[in-house]
Order: sequence, then structure tokens, then C-alpha cells
Amino acid sequence: MHMSLFEVVGWHEGKVRMLDQRLLPDQEIYPEYSSAAEVAQAIRSMVIRGAPAIGCAAAFGVAVEAHRLAQAGVPAHWEEALMPGCQTLLESRPTAINLAWAIARMRQVIAAHPTPADLPARLLAEAEAIHREDIASCRAIGEHGASLIQPPDNRPLTIMTHCNAGALATAGYGTALGVIRSAHLAGKPIRVIACETRPYLQGARLTAWELVKEGIHTTLITDNMAGHLMSQGDIDLVVVGADRIAANGDTANKIGTYSHAVLANRNGIPFLVAAPISTIDLNTLRGSDIPIEERPADEVTHCLNQRIAAIGVHVRNPAFDVTPAELISALITERGIVRVPNREKIRGLFSK
Amino acid sequence: MHMSLFEVVGWHEGKVRMLDQRLLPDQEIYPEYSSAAEVAQAIRSMVIRGAPAIGCAAAFGVAVEAHRLAQAGVPAHWEEALMPGCQTLLESRPTAINLAWAIARMRQVIAAHPTPADLPARLLAEAEAIHREDIASCRAIGEHGASLIQPPDNRPLTIMTHCNAGALATAGYGTALGVIRSAHLAGKPIRVIACETRPYLQGARLTAWELVKEGIHTTLITDNMAGHLMSQGDIDLVVVGADRIAANGDTANKIGTYSHAVLANRNGIPFLVAAPISTIDLNTLRGSDIPIEERPADEVTHCLNQRIAAIGVHVRNPAFDVTPAELISALITERGIVRVPNREKIRGLFSK
Repeated sequence: MHMSLFEVVGWHEGKVRMLDQRLLPDQEIYPEYSSAAEVAQAIRSMVIRGAPAIGCAAAFGVAVEAHRLAQAGVPAHWEEALMPGCQTLLESRPTAINLAWAIARMRQVIAAHPTPADLPARLLAEAEAIHREDIASCRAIGEHGASLIQPPDNRPLTIMTHCNAGALATAGYGTALGVIRSAHLAGKPIRVIACETRPYLQGARLTAWELVKEGIHTTLITDNMAGHLMSQGDIDLVVVGADRIAANGDTANKIGTYSHAVLANRNGIPFLVAAPISTIDLNTLRGSDIPIEERPADEVTHCLNQRIAAIGVHVRNPAFDVTPAELISALITERGIVRVPNREKIRGLFSK
Repeated sequence: MHMSLFEVVGWHEGKVRMLDQRLLPDQEIYPEYSSAAEVAQAIRSMVIRGAPAIGCAAAFGVAVEAHRLAQAGVPAHWEEALMPGCQTLLESRPTAINLAWAIARMRQVIAAHPTPADLPARLLAEAEAIHREDIASCRAIGEHGASLIQPPDNRPLTIMTHCNAGALATAGYGTALGVIRSAHLAGKPIRVIACETRPYLQGARLTAWELVKEGIHTTLITDNMAGHLMSQGDIDLVVVGADRIAANGDTANKIGTYSHAVLANRNGIPFLVAAPISTIDLNTLRGSDIPIEERPADEVTHCLNQRIAAIGVHVRNPAFDVTPAELISALITERGIVRVPNREKIRGLFSK
């Protein structure tokens, strides 16, 4: 069985511990957090990122908040006591729906608490369950997705991915990289092209790091090279993760994903989205309803804390974009594969 | 009359002087070069870049080589004596055709030299002529192009550009940025979106620097944000330069240009190419015949000399891509505008 060589987020001696992804690939450091506010700040400042990983971190954030509050005596009104912490976590980042989904699950436990003294332990158990289920989902996504990876007889299949939808973006194993991992573990000959993913360089720093560790042949490119390589026949397939999937299949993911989808479409290259069901938000009817986070300007004017841009220039920094469902060849979930997703097929996933 | 605030390349006390663009926007330093080999090395290492500017630099490179040789006495066989220098310059970068075009012009002067002792001065005069004509071409391109910049009544027109096709990429004034400059000087309300242009960041470092100096409202984005902004209606028009235009109108330009063209096409946004006639190569029949330079891996794994990528990753680094003529709404040259260029219309430009 395949095990990650690092723990993205977990519970460690009464605290939430995360791998600080801002320092990768240079340093592997595991800071710890003791309150919901601290966990929210870690999410906001990108210590941890990736929609499913953010969901797990938020769940542990609620659990650690309950532990913190209980140290001063069990609160009379748990729901009231935990409300501010839940709200802070909920507002830490706007686009990934897994965050809201995880908090909603934790709130159900809070609302149902039969014995107030047990609640911290119950919340921790729920967070651990979300974490465990996320890994199981990723493995199932990997298995389903690997069936779509069919290298030709005479050469490896070249798969392009954007940003990091890997073990680092989830509780472990990954969604898009889960598909790649499963194909690799099944002995299928593959090569990966990782887009560096400006401005935050998740592709260069995180995806390359994960895949090289795994022994998978990986080639780094700048984001603007993808279209050229597609036009040259150098890319066979694209697989990415998702931060929120609307009810009609429109998919928000890291900025640049939409461009890759348009270019894949023009060049006749399959474009796959791999994500757990928790990424689908039936309350968001279409892509244009998904809030797109604008992040600080210095992520664009600077690269690893060095200024790269002329002084006086304005900046736009949308962190995500929306790929229309019609450009998605298949959506890979833990419940199976949906080809060219639409409202009906997406609804069908929930009755499985 | 509009004057540049810096000299990109020129003749200074018997040497070729260039603005070292690798140090912009932080430092404005003007190194000098005394031989064809030194100029070729400066071109190769990106002290100067941009197809028309490279052409000018190469012409001055031939002139300075003649001056250097003449110091040891006038050679008996000028053509033989200058051949290695011309060849070194020709091979300094493969994609921009203006380089070959400028060397060919200098070779005509060498072949026709009536008085051997005068040749160095004649070569310098020819290089100065190429330089002067390039500025005149850019101004004419600017005038023609500005006629296509038609802001609506109620708001400024937002023009996106990629890489740097500005004063810094030419003898002065610029091609794509020449169009923007002319529109701005004509009082048309415009705003510019500059794509940062990884890996070499010409957009962030050079285009933003030029335009901010000029007082033109400029917003910097990472390359992968262009498609998203187009889909949101935030970009009205795209204008870029060119490194080589094939006889059928297919256009090689900085990596990422092709992707922008595909995205503009999908979103119904006009896509303009601005370039002097010297960029058109009738001997290159179509885009697939244009040699695409692959540059060193460390441009991708590093950003301003800092490593950004995990160790062990492979790299692709094509410096250019090819935009098919069908995606080009108009080609703007000093001889006028060609809408949706093709073989016939391009040939027509040469009979004007």
C-alpha cells in the first residue's frame, strides 16, 4: 500500500500540526496551532492550500478550538462558544467549497452533542473521520482515473497538470496527482508535465517535489508554454483538481486552468478534472456564481520575496478561474467517472 | 515629438553601447562592446532582446568589427575578414529573422565596397541607417495601429500585451508598444494590461517600466490570468510584436503568444500583431518552418537567480511559439494594415 512520505495536516498532542507548504521544497517544517483563529490564519497565509486539505485543516481547527475552550471549563452553550471560531475558519478563503462543507459537518456534530463534556473528543473524531475519508476518496479517484490513462504501445503517455492537486492539496495521495500516482503504481508508462503555476509556484515547488520524490519523470514548464507544447503534440492528456464545482459542472480551479482547457479543446486533447464529491456545491448553480478570491498584489510583483516588477505598476491577482463544463472531457470522483458533466449527471452522483 | 528617455543601442566613441536590459528595472547601465564576438555574446545573453533591436545591434556589431580589424591595417579581403564575425552574430539567436535581415544588408555594403579604406565608415553609416529606419518604421506602425484603437464613449479601452515589444525591443518607440504610445499621445483613453512573461519577465521588468515612465495606466498580471480576464470582459484588444512572420502570415513571437491568440479568438477579442516589414521572411513558407530556440533550463528553475523548483525535475524552455495566421485579426506594418494576413496579402506588402 502506498504511503505518503509526509503528513499534510493532522492532530499532534492536542494541537493541529501542518506541513508549512510555503517553505517547500527547501525546508520541511511542521508548525502547530492551538486555536481556530490560528488555523484560519494558517489557511489564509497559505501554510496549507488545496481545497480538500483546507477542508481537513478547518475540521481540525474546530476540534482544537473546542479543546482550547474546554480547558477553561466546559461551556454551557457549545454552539455559541464555537460560533466565532467556525465563522473565522469559514471566512479564511472564499473559493474552495470543501471548507464550508467540512465546517458544516463539524456543526452537525456540535448541534447533536448529547453529552457536553464529550464534545471536544467527538469533534476530534469527526475531524479524523473527514481526514480518513479524504484519503479513501483520493484513492478511489486514483483508481477510477487510472482507467482513463491508456499509454500507446510505443511510448509513455504525457500528462500535463496545473498547480498542485497532490498529496499536499489533500489529506494525502491527491486528486489529479492521485490519478497519476495510481497509473504509475499500476505500472503504466507515463511522464508528467508540471506547469509552474504563477504567482505562487505550486507546480514548481510542490508538484515537482511530490512527483520527483515518487520517482515519476516530471518536466517543469512555465504556464505560458502549455499551449505551444499542446500544438506540437507533446501533451496527450490534461488532469487538474478543483476548488469548487457548480451544480452544472462549471469548475473553479487555480488561475490558468481555464486557459489550459481552452487550449486542450482546440488541440483535441482530453481535459480531466479529478475531485471528491465534497468539492461539488449544488447550491452554486453555475460557474459565474462562484466567488473568485483576489489575493495580495505582492504575490505578482514579487517572486520568493524579490521584487520583479517596475515600481508604479497596478496589479490584478485573481487566484482562481472558471472552466465551463463543456470543456471538461470527464469529471473523476470517488463515486466514478462522469463524461462531459452537466446538471443531470452531477445530480446523479449524489443518488449513488 | 516623442523621444525615448533611454538609448537601447547606439554608437559611442568607436564602440557599440547598449542598455543592459537584464538589470532593468533596478539599474540603468550601459556597457560597451568592441567586437562582433562581444556583441554576439551580448545578444545571446539577453543584454539586448526584441527582434528589431537585435537586428540593430547586429548591424552595429559588423561595423565595430570592421573598425577593430582596420586598427591593425586595412585588410586585403574585407569579405573574408568580416565573414567570421558576421557568422557569429548570425548564430547568436535563431528565431528572430531581423538579425539575418540586418546582417544581409551589411553584407551588401561589404560586397559593394569601392574604396577598402572607407568600409568601416560606410558600415557604420549603414548601421546608423538601419537604426534610423527602425525608429521611423515604429512610428509609422504606431500611427497605422492607433487608427485601430477606438475606445468606447464611456470608458477607456483596455489593451493587453505580452512580453516587451516596446522601445526596448527596437531602436526606440516600439512596435506593439508603439501602437499603444501613438494612441496615448493622440489622447485616446487607454489602459494597458501587461503579462509578466515568464520565464524572463520582460513584461514585469521592461514593459511595465517603459509604460509607467510614459504615464500610461498599466496593470501587471501573470501570464495565466489573461484567459480569465478575457472571459470576464476585462480585455478589449490584444497587441503583440513578432520575431519572425512566415510568408503565409504565421507568426513566431515570445512563448505564450499562441495561447493568448487562441483565448482571444474564443472570446471574440481582436488580436493584432505589430511588426516592421523586416520581420517578414518570405523564405520561410509557414510557421512550422520557423526554428524555435530552446533556452537554458535555469531560466525556468530559477527566478532572478533564486531557485524556485524542486531538485531533480526536468525542464522544457522554448522561447517562442507560433500563432497561425488565421488567429491574427490584423498585421500592422510601416506600410499599412493587413487584415487576417495570408500569403497573397503579405506578398502585396512587398510591392508597395
